[in-house]
Amino acid sequence: MRVGLVGYGYWGPNLMRNLTEIEGVEVRWCSDQRADRCALAKKRYPFVKVTDNPEDIFTDREVEAVVLATPVFSHYPLAKRALATHKHVLVEKPLARTVAEGEELRDLAEKNGLVLMVDHTFVYTGAVRKMKEIIDVGELGDLHYLDSVRVNLGLFQHDVDVLWDLAPHDLSILTYLVHEPPRYVSAIGADHTGSGLSDVAYMTVTFDSNFIAHFHVNWLSPVKVRQILIGGSRRMLVYNDMEPSEKVRVYDRGVRVRTEESIHRALVDYRTGDMWAPKLELREALAVECEHFVECVRFKKMPWSSAAAGLLVVRLLEAASKSLAAGGGSVPV
Amino acid sequence: MRVGLVGYGYWGPNLMRNLTEIEGVEVRWCSDQRADRCALAKKRYPFVKVTDNPEDIFTDREVEAVVLATPVFSHYPLAKRALATHKHVLVEKPLARTVAEGEELRDLAEKNGLVLMVDHTFVYTGAVRKMKEIIDVGELGDLHYLDSVRVNLGLFQHDVDVLWDLAPHDLSILTYLVHEPPRYVSAIGADHTGSGLSDVAYMTVTFDSNFIAHFHVNWLSPVKVRQILIGGSRRMLVYNDMEPSEKVRVYDRGVRVRTEESIHRALVDYRTGDMWAPKLELREALAVECEHFVECVRFKKMPWSSAAAGLLVVRLLEAASKSLAAGGGSVPV
Amino acid sequence: MRVGLVGYGYWGPNLMRNLTEIEGVEVRWCSDQRADRCALAKKRYPFVKVTDNPEDIFTDREVEAVVLATPVFSHYPLAKRALATHKHVLVEKPLARTVAEGEELRDLAEKNGLVLMVDHTFVYTGAVRKMKEIIDVGELGDLHYLDSVRVNLGLFQHDVDVLWDLAPHDLSILTYLVHEPPRYVSAIGADHTGSGLSDVAYMTVTFDSNFIAHFHVNWLSPVKVRQILIGGSRRMLVYNDMEPSEKVRVYDRGVRVRTEESIHRALVDYRTGDMWAPKLELREALAVECEHFVECVRFKKMPWSSAAAGLLVVRLLEAASKSLAAGGGSVPV
Amino acid sequence: MRVGLVGYGYWGPNLMRNLTEIEGVEVRWCSDQRADRCALAKKRYPFVKVTDNPEDIFTDREVEAVVLATPVFSHYPLAKRALATHKHVLVEKPLARTVAEGEELRDLAEKNGLVLMVDHTFVYTGAVRKMKEIIDVGELGDLHYLDSVRVNLGLFQHDVDVLWDLAPHDLSILTYLVHEPPRYVSAIGADHTGSGLSDVAYMTVTFDSNFIAHFHVNWLSPVKVRQILIGGSRRMLVYNDMEPSEKVRVYDRGVRVRTEESIHRALVDYRTGDMWAPKLELREALAVECEHFVECVRFKKMPWSSAAAGLLVVRLLEAASKSLAAGGGSVPV
Repeated sequence: MRVGLVGYGYWGPNLMRNLTEIEGVEVRWCSDQRADRCALAKKRYPFVKVTDNPEDIFTDREVEAVVLATPVFSHYPLAKRALATHKHVLVEKPLARTVAEGEELRDLAEKNGLVLMVDHTFVYTGAVRKMKEIIDVGELGDLHYLDSVRVNLGLFQHDVDVLWDLAPHDLSILTYLVHEPPRYVSAIGADHTGSGLSDVAYMTVTFDSNFIAHFHVNWLSPVKVRQILIGGSRRMLVYNDMEPSEKVRVYDRGVRVRTEESIHRALVDYRTGDMWAPKLELREALAVECEHFVECVRFKKMPWSSAAAGLLVVRLLEAASKSLAAGGGSVPV
Repeated sequence: MRVGLVGYGYWGPNLMRNLTEIEGVEVRWCSDQRADRCALAKKRYPFVKVTDNPEDIFTDREVEAVVLATPVFSHYPLAKRALATHKHVLVEKPLARTVAEGEELRDLAEKNGLVLMVDHTFVYTGAVRKMKEIIDVGELGDLHYLDSVRVNLGLFQHDVDVLWDLAPHDLSILTYLVHEPPRYVSAIGADHTGSGLSDVAYMTVTFDSNFIAHFHVNWLSPVKVRQILIGGSRRMLVYNDMEPSEKVRVYDRGVRVRTEESIHRALVDYRTGDMWAPKLELREALAVECEHFVECVRFKKMPWSSAAAGLLVVRLLEAASKSLAAGGGSVPV
Repeated sequence: MRVGLVGYGYWGPNLMRNLTEIEGVEVRWCSDQRADRCALAKKRYPFVKVTDNPEDIFTDREVEAVVLATPVFSHYPLAKRALATHKHVLVEKPLARTVAEGEELRDLAEKNGLVLMVDHTFVYTGAVRKMKEIIDVGELGDLHYLDSVRVNLGLFQHDVDVLWDLAPHDLSILTYLVHEPPRYVSAIGADHTGSGLSDVAYMTVTFDSNFIAHFHVNWLSPVKVRQILIGGSRRMLVYNDMEPSEKVRVYDRGVRVRTEESIHRALVDYRTGDMWAPKLELREALAVECEHFVECVRFKKMPWSSAAAGLLVVRLLEAASKSLAAGGGSVPV
Repeated sequence: MRVGLVGYGYWGPNLMRNLTEIEGVEVRWCSDQRADRCALAKKRYPFVKVTDNPEDIFTDREVEAVVLATPVFSHYPLAKRALATHKHVLVEKPLARTVAEGEELRDLAEKNGLVLMVDHTFVYTGAVRKMKEIIDVGELGDLHYLDSVRVNLGLFQHDVDVLWDLAPHDLSILTYLVHEPPRYVSAIGADHTGSGLSDVAYMTVTFDSNFIAHFHVNWLSPVKVRQILIGGSRRMLVYNDMEPSEKVRVYDRGVRVRTEESIHRALVDYRTGDMWAPKLELREALAVECEHFVECVRFKKMPWSSAAAGLLVVRLLEAASKSLAAGGGSVPV
């Protein structure tokens, strides 16, 4: 399987390193607009052809799949062109800048019988896969809330605000773990550099049940926090990605509602029990993901992070942006 | 100075223990509706008169001050009666259930020349006092945001939701540290026990400047988090109350906005420098607070946690409740 | 049951607070050489008689039990006198300054049919009791090692070095958890203040099996560490007393020795599995301990921290002191 | 500069990755006895010649320097051969298995005018370099102790025990930071797999002053700890390598000895002040080290981790092994 990589900036080298390790995969092309990045790729991987023009990749008939690691605004035109030239596509998150763009890409992939997969890296971590397993077998009971914090002193982006930069990670986790469809989104944020782009933002997603999901994303935090709390009716879970081990902890804690409460009795009973940290698969998520992409292409499988999943994340972000622009307030998904 | 304590439940014993240690203070009365609590108080402090009727305290002419450690709904009637019988008052947070009640109490105290102080305990911790010092000398520069998380598997309250139970702590810290007046409040939450009271809630406060404050309060968290991040234009601060020492950390980190940016240059520059954890006063906050109350009574001083401060907290909570009931959306303070 | 407390300095007030809460116990006396400490005890507990002379307690025939919270050098004479006047005794750790003194006290208690209990507080914590339970049911398999660290910026003692001050805690845990008799002790340390007393020390205890126990005690550490690692053939355990919750964690990790290894195969296989933190009893250890003392007196029971346990700790300390004086090297227990 | 790498097992790939990134360095050869490792190196770096025979490298006259990433027993013969064929050498830690071997290598390098550098990686971390800076300017005052813990569930080695496997890291840090010559070493340990090699060990190094250094190394720990405490007369320092940031913390804490103490006054005064975490250089240590090696070769400089430094580490290990075999007890260095 011959692959072309577009973009050798921040994330591209990680994709390159993992793709070149897969048995039976040949990375034939690497393109980047900057000559120094092309030179670096060539130094490290002398067998790869470099170019500043992605068209060289699209027009190479022997290339079966294209991996896009470029800025957000370019996802739509590049993915569209790749799909039009009958190449399978793995594209950085988010899938596109608008729902309309995302739908067009999804439809084009479907029409041409091609795999369109979004790089929702976290979905391929041992931690998130174990969390899905735990939730799917009912270990947590009914889900009450998901609270996510992803903050650090972050690289300001030029073309997207902090929501579009960081929240796709957490929204991809939300949509992977929770099957109920989201209904309303509200978001509020602030811009402290005068760039017109929020650097601190809070986003809430509500559902028909009383499940609630909340996201704090922040480029201006002195400390790095990557934590998700999930509360359920039976048990609760903490996913702390900054822990070197025991990233996922399940707490046998909760409250039990009393049905025949009186005014003088407590409405709920407490339960605090053991804590349990399951063993996690430790392979690099991107390695798992790249192999999954290759497998989906070879065996015509639906990726875990499909175009549909990517589109739902864009739908949530688009609603959040609308709410943010209006100073908060609910926007339907 | 003779004092009466009303309420010997969860918090009352802490007030009693601290009040009895102050030189020149005599705790003459302790009242509680439950006979077993009165008996316990009597066993521990045989010199204190116990009663199930707070009127015994209000009508004792030798009692100068009353400390109220009772459920929220009783703050207004008890404080009103105490002020009417010419006693100085230290009342549990929040000051009252409504702005109207709070204003009436404030006015009555003023009219009668009495001290009305609210038990905003955190304002009396070494950590928060040091934070105020750091902010007031300009160490952080212009404030960008305050992000507060106060979550744990908490005791469900019967008469108030999680916002009215936990947020007063953080709102009292906000109003103590930040001098700019709050303008709008929005809040969203969920009730998972069918009690009609939210057990998870998020609250945002906005200001005329682009400073933004956000609060996460939660009775259903498997882990206890008590953390405040404050971002400023010069430096940033983390207050982690769960740390046994070094609760306050100042980070010489930040971004500097470039005025003449071009599309090819970064909009902002990064700065990461040293971290610094100032030595903190370690005395028990409640001991400091009780002594401060006594001093305010003796020397007719304005408490740090005055009726005005207590009222501002109630004003924010009342606005938050309105927003919560409406499913989010901005409500003016 | 009438009790007298000797010593109202650092630890005495905690004993007093817990003793006065026990149903059926009357603390009749409190003695301290310092008048201000007597005055403080009187202010807090007006019903207790205070004296600067412990003889007043020993000669009060109605006093059944004496609790000693005084400096180490006084344990032997005071306990001896108390036992001679037919009072049950709860004495601060360590039981005595020498094995000879300890043996005399143990024999005297036995002869007079009295309870002699040592205040090995940690043995009464939920954490250590749960650890004993886990070890006793064989959850850890054969024990390989116990590694203990107890360090902080500590109060220098006048009459004992850091080993005699801090190690009794950890040695009492060792002797409570491990049934195999210790054989040899070695210790090394250093004195940085010229006082002649080590402020940093390391102590190793060996056994007939290849189980090994090691202790690091230090008054000169900038950070507070209270951690014990226990490795076993089946599982391993970490006890971190600085954790607010989950103080005890059991790791399903280990190595399995291969019997028929060859030079090209690994000698051992690895196993890393789940981690599990059992729920712990949260009651204050000293409350549990004081009640246990009262129960032992009432029902003629052998305390968990008996004179024999206290004596074994003194035996280990005496051997360690010999090794320390000799600059290290093994000393038989 | 043409370089040959011997050994492409666990550590070799990291050396390869860093060496190939240095401007002006050509990695011409990679040798490994295993064909699959050679194949992997060839796949990743097609421009490198692979061989199962290191002689191919030694006899290539154009190769100027050799990097050895092989098991400990082979360091001496391979380094000797490389120096004999006039190649500069960077060798894995420890330099050799015995002091005699190390001295021979040092002398041979000196005689042939070649650089012989030991891969003491930690010496090239931003953390350890900053610690040296802090100590050298006198920030800590006189050094009192260094306490090091390096434990985890580690890969059992076939040819060396846990002391020779893990302690070289910490001993290289000790000898880099502390200028006073070590005098005596004692060590104690235990073997729980019957392999004859200790898997848990404690080592103490003493000096003419009352400075003391202690090392805990352990392959059987359920948790990973990498921490060094350094106590000084003015300040104290904690180096926690598991912290994602703020690895080095300086505490303005200590004790001050009173000269005219009486029996009733404390012998020492306490001081607790601020804590400070300096900004650290974040470059990968191995990148810094590889560049340093190239620079030393080019400009005939003495490496920070010279043969002399490597030899001192071997000297300490050899003494420790002697003490360990004797069941503890002091051995002169």
